[in-house]
Amino acid sequence: MTEINRRSFIAGVGLAAGFASPSVRSQPVAAIPERTAPPVTEILASYIVGARHSYLPDAVRKEGTRTLFNWTGVAIGGAREEAIDIAVAALAAFAGTSQAGLVGRRERLDVMNAAFVNGLAGHVLDFDDTHLKTVIHPAAAVVPALFAYAEHSAAAGKCVSGSDFLTALVIGVEIECRIGNAVYPDHYSAGWHITGTTGVFGAAAGLSKLMGLDQEKTAWALGLAASQPVGLRESFGTMNKSFNPGRAASNGLFAASLAAGGFASSNRMIEAKAGWMRTLSTKQDYDQITDGLGQRYEILLNTYKPFPCGIVLHPAIDAAVQLHKENKLTGAMIQRVDLKVNPLVLELTGQTTPRTGLESKFSIYHAVAVALLEGAAGTAQFSDRAVQDRSVIALRTKVKPTVFATVRPEEVEMSVMLNDGRRLFKRIDHAIGGVERPMSDIDLDRKFFDVASCVLPQAQVNRIMDLCWKIEHLADASEIIRHATLA
Amino acid sequence: MTEINRRSFIAGVGLAAGFASPSVRSQPVAAIPERTAPPVTEILASYIVGARHSYLPDAVRKEGTRTLFNWTGVAIGGAREEAIDIAVAALAAFAGTSQAGLVGRRERLDVMNAAFVNGLAGHVLDFDDTHLKTVIHPAAAVVPALFAYAEHSAAAGKCVSGSDFLTALVIGVEIECRIGNAVYPDHYSAGWHITGTTGVFGAAAGLSKLMGLDQEKTAWALGLAASQPVGLRESFGTMNKSFNPGRAASNGLFAASLAAGGFASSNRMIEAKAGWMRTLSTKQDYDQITDGLGQRYEILLNTYKPFPCGIVLHPAIDAAVQLHKENKLTGAMIQRVDLKVNPLVLELTGQTTPRTGLESKFSIYHAVAVALLEGAAGTAQFSDRAVQDRSVIALRTKVKPTVFATVRPEEVEMSVMLNDGRRLFKRIDHAIGGVERPMSDIDLDRKFFDVASCVLPQAQVNRIMDLCWKIEHLADASEIIRHATLA
Repeated sequence: MTEINRRSFIAGVGLAAGFASPSVRSQPVAAIPERTAPPVTEILASYIVGARHSYLPDAVRKEGTRTLFNWTGVAIGGAREEAIDIAVAALAAFAGTSQAGLVGRRERLDVMNAAFVNGLAGHVLDFDDTHLKTVIHPAAAVVPALFAYAEHSAAAGKCVSGSDFLTALVIGVEIECRIGNAVYPDHYSAGWHITGTTGVFGAAAGLSKLMGLDQEKTAWALGLAASQPVGLRESFGTMNKSFNPGRAASNGLFAASLAAGGFASSNRMIEAKAGWMRTLSTKQDYDQITDGLGQRYEILLNTYKPFPCGIVLHPAIDAAVQLHKENKLTGAMIQRVDLKVNPLVLELTGQTTPRTGLESKFSIYHAVAVALLEGAAGTAQFSDRAVQDRSVIALRTKVKPTVFATVRPEEVEMSVMLNDGRRLFKRIDHAIGGVERPMSDIDLDRKFFDVASCVLPQAQVNRIMDLCWKIEHLADASEIIRHATLA
Repeated sequence: MTEINRRSFIAGVGLAAGFASPSVRSQPVAAIPERTAPPVTEILASYIVGARHSYLPDAVRKEGTRTLFNWTGVAIGGAREEAIDIAVAALAAFAGTSQAGLVGRRERLDVMNAAFVNGLAGHVLDFDDTHLKTVIHPAAAVVPALFAYAEHSAAAGKCVSGSDFLTALVIGVEIECRIGNAVYPDHYSAGWHITGTTGVFGAAAGLSKLMGLDQEKTAWALGLAASQPVGLRESFGTMNKSFNPGRAASNGLFAASLAAGGFASSNRMIEAKAGWMRTLSTKQDYDQITDGLGQRYEILLNTYKPFPCGIVLHPAIDAAVQLHKENKLTGAMIQRVDLKVNPLVLELTGQTTPRTGLESKFSIYHAVAVALLEGAAGTAQFSDRAVQDRSVIALRTKVKPTVFATVRPEEVEMSVMLNDGRRLFKRIDHAIGGVERPMSDIDLDRKFFDVASCVLPQAQVNRIMDLCWKIEHLADASEIIRHATLA
């Protein structure tokens, strides 16, 4: 029984005897108090409308640029994966073909479907950025939605400048991460793929800014975004995982486009009793949304994966790669590998016998085995080839993780028993790529170049990298996407 | 803390002392038991693949035809509402224009956007069908998705026969209502607009059948549908309410189209630990999904609204219309109106001062006042005109509903105090239009004719009505939609 039903029931029983007497007390709905919630939908809409590029601190602009840079490289790298091929072929039956390009590919689609497909490409390698407080991948839904809109606008003669693009990106990341902070971890623990559910807000928020919507329409865009959450964690290890941010991108674009035309929603959709936060989470920490809005930026907490797989695997991979390099390990040397890990490691990446590259991104057994054997953990180590490698399969059965609630997600302890009786130990306090050991710009350069060069010619990759670093100086942000497609 | 985290924590503490000893016991993920759930995703996929038109009992085929008939009339009637005008104009920026028609309109769109817009039109008047066990509007997402696909198939020379169309409709309704039964009322009480959240499944299921998907791909279609629930109850009274089944229709079409191309999901998305039922509901009654599947049909419980507004208002309107007719009531005669109502009446329709026709569909105060004054409750009584009528405004402040948990949703007691001292009383045990007092075929004829004639010429309306009743004999089901558009 809901709170309102329970209250009504009690009120009803008390009044039953007096019904139909002229003195009966009515029970108007206003007498039923709701839990007090600040008007966060309007607060966010007001913030979005008021935000300006000139208000962004240098560090925020810099991190926004790194976010864009990392997404673009990873999306190009993912552009030829099977999931993308299938999606492009399936959508051809109804998609338009002229409005927006697909990174790393020859085809063009209408903006809605281009946002979806580029969203798939950016997430399919599980190599994108991570807001570790919420495990949201902030760029995943936001950037493809902004790019599709920017390219379409340019064709209509109204270019989106690079600085406007970056401002919208920062806004989108801010909105999705603040909403994420307000409901994490309950919302994620319940089963939601938080990147998809909050990503719709991020895309709608950034687009509301680019479209120049007023506060009322921005609130409606957020309301229509709230109506379209995407993604459940059961999808992990399947094509459906990257579907989630892809569809979040097109849902955000759909929401903002309708709101721009005057399609109305509630202006309390995030905080209302039957609204997003109370329906999709048992935790509602409204202060996380409103405190320091416009002062403190969540994008400063963004991180970039050094390894293309579930982020909770990164400490163990970091340890395994180091142990391999320090000890020139081979499969024949290793008797057993013990790990102390955070509980999320087995909850999210407990696949014991992955059958595909996609599944291997969610297997602690595979990740540790392949990293110990090959001293690396790039796209080659999470491919169908690696999953079928006999020495990897043999070693992964010797990997024995044990979960401890006291081990933080960025930590691991690894103990490798060798057949010669030696024991090798490695403790990681902060996995490489995290906030404490961030990827440098040069690390990001190397990552972009390596992953994108598998799909596009090196000279073209270099040109795109250059454009991404210079985003704030571009008169037309969609120049990046045009350079990132195949002619 | 989730169940899995709690178990892991306990296991972790117990093992902490022994870590890194060769005798340490590992904690593989297989050792963590999940709550047992039957494989409902696969069970439903198997049912969908095996279903045949020849298996449908006569009564089921008849009710499927009535469901189609009622949706078509109501959708034509809603086709010129402001929400539809706005959506069509906004979508024009990116939608294709050639694939599918819009009921009651001249424009054409690509199938995905046509399914959305026709979905809006079918629900915007709040005049459609209702599965009272769950308050799902079964046709709302299913029929527009099937029509868009059927019309596109016909253009490609592969007509969907009327009997195949009706089979897919029955399947779609069956799947969405069974999933609804399994989670109602908890899922709805939490804040979800159940028509949108389950409607995605209904549309995907019906389309999987029409597309001839095998069991694996049908399960993926259901998985991608599960990833895209639409709609929160905070939207009620705004354009966002009809957005929900509209987007559910296009989401279902999107899911089935991708699955048809081989885009993979989990085959346990409905029942898995981080799947749809456990993430979106505190109640999971799996038997409601599987018991008597293919034997007992939920569509036999479908009902058709006699009044274009929230279904929980219908008993009170029924009483008010009867009292008006029996007593020739005018506003000047009435001192006060007391009502005993189910708690949902104030939870869903507690709007005291509606400002628009859309909002008035969720106001017990308006509905009772206008029905007492005008002796009717059609689209004219829930229009902007009616909301601004001074005598309605004056009377609605005298309407005093009191909620009682013991009053069933289909019941009401109304007591009208007159200025001359008389008291008029009316008790409704089963509102008109419910399962116990169903709309007859002639009632449906009159409803269709009245509502659709406001939008299309009467001769055209008669032709469409005839085609709908004959659906099972049509070689091409999309003939209906082609006749229902403007040339």
